[in-house]
Amino acid sequence: MQNDDIVFLTIAEAARLITARELSPVELVDAHLRRIEETDGRLNSFITLLGDEAMAAAARAEQALAAGRKPGPLHGIPVGLKDLYDVAGVPTTVGSKILREFVPQRDAAVTERFEAAGAIILGKLQLHEFALGATSVNPHDGPAHNPWDTDRVTGGSSGGSGSAVAAGQCMAALGSDTGGSIRIPSALCGIVGLKPTFGRVSRRGVYPLSHTLDTAGPMARTVRDTALVLNVIAGHDPEDSSSSRRPVEDYAAGLEGGVAGMRIGIPHECFFDLLDPEVERAVLQAARTLEGLGASVDHVSIPAFEHAVPISGPILLSEAASVHMDRLRRNPGAIGADVLARLLQGALTSATDYIKAQQARTVFNRRVADAMRDFDMLLAPTAPMAAPRIDEASVEIGGVSTSVLALLPRLTRGFNICGVPVVSVPCGFTEAGMPIGMQLAGRPFGETTVLRAAHAYEQVSVCASWRPPI
Amino acid sequence: MQNDDIVFLTIAEAARLITARELSPVELVDAHLRRIEETDGRLNSFITLLGDEAMAAAARAEQALAAGRKPGPLHGIPVGLKDLYDVAGVPTTVGSKILREFVPQRDAAVTERFEAAGAIILGKLQLHEFALGATSVNPHDGPAHNPWDTDRVTGGSSGGSGSAVAAGQCMAALGSDTGGSIRIPSALCGIVGLKPTFGRVSRRGVYPLSHTLDTAGPMARTVRDTALVLNVIAGHDPEDSSSSRRPVEDYAAGLEGGVAGMRIGIPHECFFDLLDPEVERAVLQAARTLEGLGASVDHVSIPAFEHAVPISGPILLSEAASVHMDRLRRNPGAIGADVLARLLQGALTSATDYIKAQQARTVFNRRVADAMRDFDMLLAPTAPMAAPRIDEASVEIGGVSTSVLALLPRLTRGFNICGVPVVSVPCGFTEAGMPIGMQLAGRPFGETTVLRAAHAYEQVSVCASWRPPI
Repeated sequence: MQNDDIVFLTIAEAARLITARELSPVELVDAHLRRIEETDGRLNSFITLLGDEAMAAAARAEQALAAGRKPGPLHGIPVGLKDLYDVAGVPTTVGSKILREFVPQRDAAVTERFEAAGAIILGKLQLHEFALGATSVNPHDGPAHNPWDTDRVTGGSSGGSGSAVAAGQCMAALGSDTGGSIRIPSALCGIVGLKPTFGRVSRRGVYPLSHTLDTAGPMARTVRDTALVLNVIAGHDPEDSSSSRRPVEDYAAGLEGGVAGMRIGIPHECFFDLLDPEVERAVLQAARTLEGLGASVDHVSIPAFEHAVPISGPILLSEAASVHMDRLRRNPGAIGADVLARLLQGALTSATDYIKAQQARTVFNRRVADAMRDFDMLLAPTAPMAAPRIDEASVEIGGVSTSVLALLPRLTRGFNICGVPVVSVPCGFTEAGMPIGMQLAGRPFGETTVLRAAHAYEQVSVCASWRPPI
Repeated sequence: MQNDDIVFLTIAEAARLITARELSPVELVDAHLRRIEETDGRLNSFITLLGDEAMAAAARAEQALAAGRKPGPLHGIPVGLKDLYDVAGVPTTVGSKILREFVPQRDAAVTERFEAAGAIILGKLQLHEFALGATSVNPHDGPAHNPWDTDRVTGGSSGGSGSAVAAGQCMAALGSDTGGSIRIPSALCGIVGLKPTFGRVSRRGVYPLSHTLDTAGPMARTVRDTALVLNVIAGHDPEDSSSSRRPVEDYAAGLEGGVAGMRIGIPHECFFDLLDPEVERAVLQAARTLEGLGASVDHVSIPAFEHAVPISGPILLSEAASVHMDRLRRNPGAIGADVLARLLQGALTSATDYIKAQQARTVFNRRVADAMRDFDMLLAPTAPMAAPRIDEASVEIGGVSTSVLALLPRLTRGFNICGVPVVSVPCGFTEAGMPIGMQLAGRPFGETTVLRAAHAYEQVSVCASWRPPI
């Protein structure tokens, strides 16, 4: 196989070839390291590359196979970690200057789970500083570049994860999603990303942003690969107090069955005045495709969604400021301007405003749960637009100039408030050739249902076969 | 019977006499109204007296008996409500000037439950303004006076409930407990009071103070009467989102069985330097009594208790400020000076301080739960001192002058943080003749266990037979 054919294998295919001894983990990891070498000067996906460690792990993985040991579900599969997951002995920078020297002594829970499953960690990936922003234009590491057009942003905050997976630098990556940080770069980079139910994946050893909103989850090129990674990382962790004890499912085994009979709701409020018409068309076309596959699709009004930003804003920013308060007091100049401004907004929020927001959240969640009684899932655009240019701080939509940082997470945040599982899946391209994503949001712990619908859609969509031009 | 003999009957005795037709509800209610008329000029327990309504209800209760209808568990029993429980058509003042004209149109959930059980509501009882203070020295209604010495405070915030029950003005009352507001006046007035587990009793129609700490519960003269009232008010309420679905128990039936084999822990941290030595002696003597009854009693250190005030302070005051924010902005001058100062402290708390306190609460709760693995309950003084004089804003203990408002809730607040059930039961008197109370704190939903221990103690204690001199 050509190098590009190897790196664009799916995890499902690669795992089969490895188990059949038709592809060696060393060959697979080496192909990815060469791809990184070839592309990362233009993409800037990696903050820390662990090439030697990965090659050594690949050799061990090969020896294990040669010795006849049973391979783990991700045996020999090269993956990346957003640089807020701890790997013992490797810096966790969280995309900041301040934490550049922070070297944890213990793996994150999901790092351990990856290694137990046989996955090989290639390195630590770019992000918006402190995971607090939706572009991954990072003043300390430089911006992450979108593999579909390197003049454009990847989206964020898990931007390096989005570009690395889309560009074949790794077969899957972990992102984190507090207000859309997995789903937005997945949509803008043309890959699949899952924000699991709050509490489904352990956050031990994941640097916090907002403890009542943060989730950890997988990003990959297909829905099946996403499910295979979720299978490995999901599950109870007694060391994470927010971790759910609910049993996990086999998410990959649950993909088949199609969408016949599924009831899909399209929330009116997600098709708002600042939505790019190209995005709107693609998402509504995808809804018709799902209908053609046997789902029932109905429009629904959930007025609570109008309040998603005013509710999530004080919660997210105050909790983030609480994490970074000592740094705000001692070393504000070391924090990038846009992140500093948002952290200060959180630091200057009153307790009473935070309490009102949390109380409004309770009402919001009840309203969404009520609306979802009639639906198995909700369908909406992931982001209101495709990837803007890196040098655009604002964009014009329908004659209105709007801040990119404010606009990008407008449609994702509501689902962090209520904590439900959401998968973002590619559903088209703009005329400029940039990917468009739609999100499917389920009921709490309904990962299998949304992944199944995304998989059914993906099977009939042309998007999955496209590769970025990088 | 003499009037005083009637009003000092227990609920258990009165209910038996009523069911046997040896005592009429009209006679019982009339005796209490006369007692109120005779004493309330000195006690100032009632904000709103519902004498005519109560006599009419008593007549209906008598007719129901005459018609052979099965009496409810509190049939004809005269009770009082702290003036933050809604009674349709009657003002809920919350002890404030601002809410003097607030007339709810619907009963609180527990008001409904009282009426369904046949109880007769005599009126609405005094409290510290907005339930935010431990003395019930109220600038709008005048102070509540302690029936053991009318120059002294009742404690608070459910001070009118404490004095009315202690003085035979009603057979039981409902208080509310956010930081000790049921237990402190119970201790200072020489009665029994139970703060149930958070979520055990509905708070619908109970004016909020701090929504993550507030609990509603009974105050009565004996442990059995307390259990009889709890039987009526406990249970799930779908209209209160914090209400537990856990099944209730028959708390009165669970009183027998004694304390043999029970493991009681005495937290070292509750015997601190500002504890009145007379209180310390009485509580340790009560511990020896429980030991004599067959319980094992051991000292235990729970260092988290040292942090109860710094953790509960920002939570309680910020949540209270959130409730009253519009009034603070528009009409601060109508709020009493001490309550205004505390509300402003809450209004000026930052979101990050509130978040830190809630996170510290999670750690606190884990520490207390860990410590309680070895014990069925914890035993401590309810308040660090017996009732101070109404004109004392500070007291001298061991040569140190301390604010009464700060000192009184020092030992109760920790149990609001972790939400466990706690009963306060009289355990002695000071040389000046003022009652002393101890609290028994159980595991979540362990009401039966703490009430059983309190009942066993009460059976061998002389305190239960004393009546206040009023």
